[in-house]
Amino acid sequence: MTERFEIVEKTILSMLESKKYLALRDVLSTMNPVDIAEIFVELEPRQIPLLFRLLPKEIAAEAFSEMESDAQEVLIQGFSDNELKSLLDELYADDAAELVEEMPASVVKRILRHATPEMRRDINQILRYPENSAGSLMTTEYVTLRPQMTVEESILRIRRQGVDKETIYTCYVTQGRKLLGIVTVKDLLLCDDDETKVADIMLTNIISVNTHTDQEEVAKMFAKYNFLALPVVDMESRMVGIVTFDDAMDVLEEETTEDIELMGGMLPSEKTYLKSSVWELFKNRIPWLLLLMISATFTGMIITSFEGALAAQAALTAYIPMLMGTGGNSGSQSSVTIIRALSLGELDWDDLPRVIWKEIRTAVLCGVVLAVVCFGKIWLIDRMLLGNTQITLMVDAVVCLALAVTVLAAKLVGAALPIGAKLLRLDPAVMASPFITSIVDALSLLVYFLFAHMLLGV
Amino acid sequence: MTERFEIVEKTILSMLESKKYLALRDVLSTMNPVDIAEIFVELEPRQIPLLFRLLPKEIAAEAFSEMESDAQEVLIQGFSDNELKSLLDELYADDAAELVEEMPASVVKRILRHATPEMRRDINQILRYPENSAGSLMTTEYVTLRPQMTVEESILRIRRQGVDKETIYTCYVTQGRKLLGIVTVKDLLLCDDDETKVADIMLTNIISVNTHTDQEEVAKMFAKYNFLALPVVDMESRMVGIVTFDDAMDVLEEETTEDIELMGGMLPSEKTYLKSSVWELFKNRIPWLLLLMISATFTGMIITSFEGALAAQAALTAYIPMLMGTGGNSGSQSSVTIIRALSLGELDWDDLPRVIWKEIRTAVLCGVVLAVVCFGKIWLIDRMLLGNTQITLMVDAVVCLALAVTVLAAKLVGAALPIGAKLLRLDPAVMASPFITSIVDALSLLVYFLFAHMLLGV
Repeated sequence: MTERFEIVEKTILSMLESKKYLALRDVLSTMNPVDIAEIFVELEPRQIPLLFRLLPKEIAAEAFSEMESDAQEVLIQGFSDNELKSLLDELYADDAAELVEEMPASVVKRILRHATPEMRRDINQILRYPENSAGSLMTTEYVTLRPQMTVEESILRIRRQGVDKETIYTCYVTQGRKLLGIVTVKDLLLCDDDETKVADIMLTNIISVNTHTDQEEVAKMFAKYNFLALPVVDMESRMVGIVTFDDAMDVLEEETTEDIELMGGMLPSEKTYLKSSVWELFKNRIPWLLLLMISATFTGMIITSFEGALAAQAALTAYIPMLMGTGGNSGSQSSVTIIRALSLGELDWDDLPRVIWKEIRTAVLCGVVLAVVCFGKIWLIDRMLLGNTQITLMVDAVVCLALAVTVLAAKLVGAALPIGAKLLRLDPAVMASPFITSIVDALSLLVYFLFAHMLLGV
Repeated sequence: MTERFEIVEKTILSMLESKKYLALRDVLSTMNPVDIAEIFVELEPRQIPLLFRLLPKEIAAEAFSEMESDAQEVLIQGFSDNELKSLLDELYADDAAELVEEMPASVVKRILRHATPEMRRDINQILRYPENSAGSLMTTEYVTLRPQMTVEESILRIRRQGVDKETIYTCYVTQGRKLLGIVTVKDLLLCDDDETKVADIMLTNIISVNTHTDQEEVAKMFAKYNFLALPVVDMESRMVGIVTFDDAMDVLEEETTEDIELMGGMLPSEKTYLKSSVWELFKNRIPWLLLLMISATFTGMIITSFEGALAAQAALTAYIPMLMGTGGNSGSQSSVTIIRALSLGELDWDDLPRVIWKEIRTAVLCGVVLAVVCFGKIWLIDRMLLGNTQITLMVDAVVCLALAVTVLAAKLVGAALPIGAKLLRLDPAVMASPFITSIVDALSLLVYFLFAHMLLGV
């Protein structure tokens, strides 16, 4: 698939170089607008307006909405007033609002000057809502029906109104501006009697979101209910817009990336990897690294205070990395599992006792198996095969007991912290591996030296 | 939202207990089938058939498809032959095939005995394809049109055929069984002239998948192109089914969870956390833990062989956890970023040089800042404040130089391994934090002792 697309891309670039514009037009007219937008990434600024003017009108606007903002800016700055006007006519209100948000002030001014009064009003309405809210994600163009309309009248109205709407498949039955019900085009088309009133077939148990609902919440409702579109109502329950599934899918992807970045110990970024500058990557990564480096002062202090024990039993030092590593891995297994379950809505805070009980049993199983294998491995490999005679049965026992207890502690910390974060209304993903590892590192050292003190008397 | 749903759930359970069946029926008829399915999770087996029989017929089948398989099994076993038959009539072929896959053999036999011959044929066709392929994900029910039909004829045909189809909004224009083009209901409804031929308005640059295309690939195409449905063709380019966006969204969620589990050092699981038994959690977690514990033998060996150096400069031991921890965190930052970018299709292997160059510059920035801060912290806190006189300027320098080099090495390993895995056609997520941490642990110790040898002569 991708390889085939790369060939198409190369063909188009070489046709553009050799000025085969007519043939190029034919190729472009058979392509998907999403793929066309991807080609613009590869173009030099001077080529961008050239290729855009070759696009058939129907797909030009759609390809434009899918483009990166640099290419959009180059295009708008090169457009004549008429070109800009006709592009704006073709854009959906939510895409236009996004454009206004991303362009520099001078370009925005030009856009607003050439937009129709309705478009300007729609853009302003969408931009009024907080970033990442349903209001900022919605589009204001949708098909409305009245409850007393018949099926036949409704279909006629859709045929007349539909051209400018992002989706026609879900229609909203309103009176005043109050949302009374939902009718799908499927319901209308499959209705046997053309004289049936919309009020009789509309769905009245409407699931809607508020303009201020967080976009992550909105996206999760799409994933759960498989909607094509979801109505957005304001504080007075008046319908103001719809969110469509394609925008919800983008949000879902963004939010998952954010979770993964947090779990990996970074500040989340809105840019893709290749678009992020070195400086931005640095800024997202350094805070956690600094924090965790400083917090390692504790592990350092623990080791320093047990220096005597380590000097008396030199073999103990060699197992510090294994102990801390296994503890860290055990903890991050639990935290990652819990964070994902929380983000998919599988867990609530009343599940906490069940989760803890499950983690305890899993941890005991993992801890016992690891300790037994580790005991054998230390004796057979480190002592017999590698001939390290500092290792006594007691040293072996200290390492393995500490290992089992560390695994248990790590799994409990790993499971409890994300749930605790959720309770405090923080993003559970913040409590991920690097953070938990730091706590577990200190715990595992304390347990280790405690056992060494008890069993070896150091 | 969730709280409101919990109240509804409690009301329904108490109405069921107090046998208020008529009122219950009214409440259920206003609910979304997805929410109804969620209530069945809370029921005892004896209550399941009772509540199901109260569901209005239109939503019973939809709620059934959304249920967990335990509840489905209880229901089928309690159904009369007639009830089973009428449920099967209402199910879409892909949901029926999924049911057959999940039920025990005796239940499957009963299902197939009561399915219509067409349904049986559809189920068999879907089950023939490998698990996780487009063929196993598709449904065989879709609307077909002929190229010579007019818009009016097409709309009539949709109104007649549509009842049993999962989606009617995308129609497929076929001749023989070859797929010629795609027409949406929007195109048909918005067409001005009812006599226009389908062949004249259909989209012919069809994006389709093969029956054997991996489901992850399919899901990514939905995320990219925002399709409602995607046609599936066989090896001879004949159309055999469609994948709908709701199933694609489920796959996307599953595949992301799988990636996250792999990144957290676990074998991926198909069950949700609360559904997984302790034994299953154990089986998914222990392989990585064992592997990484054993691989820590290397770090142990490195420490043992530098025992003399550690004895001569006791202060060095205290910084081992900080060094290894910072290295591990730096590496997992890079690997997690790259793995996500690969899985979103943002990176290709020709991007490797750019990625490495970007990581080198980011690593140098991070490394220098960390080393400088660490140098100051060790001197001010560990030496001056905590009064550890074993720390000399040279010891401090060794720790900080090792830190900077470790960060660089960790970021390179973290970036290169997932891309390497992709090249070897492995899942990049396997090369995640725990794995990279083990390599980086060993590297950081080697670097540390090398600097100690060079600068401190131990």
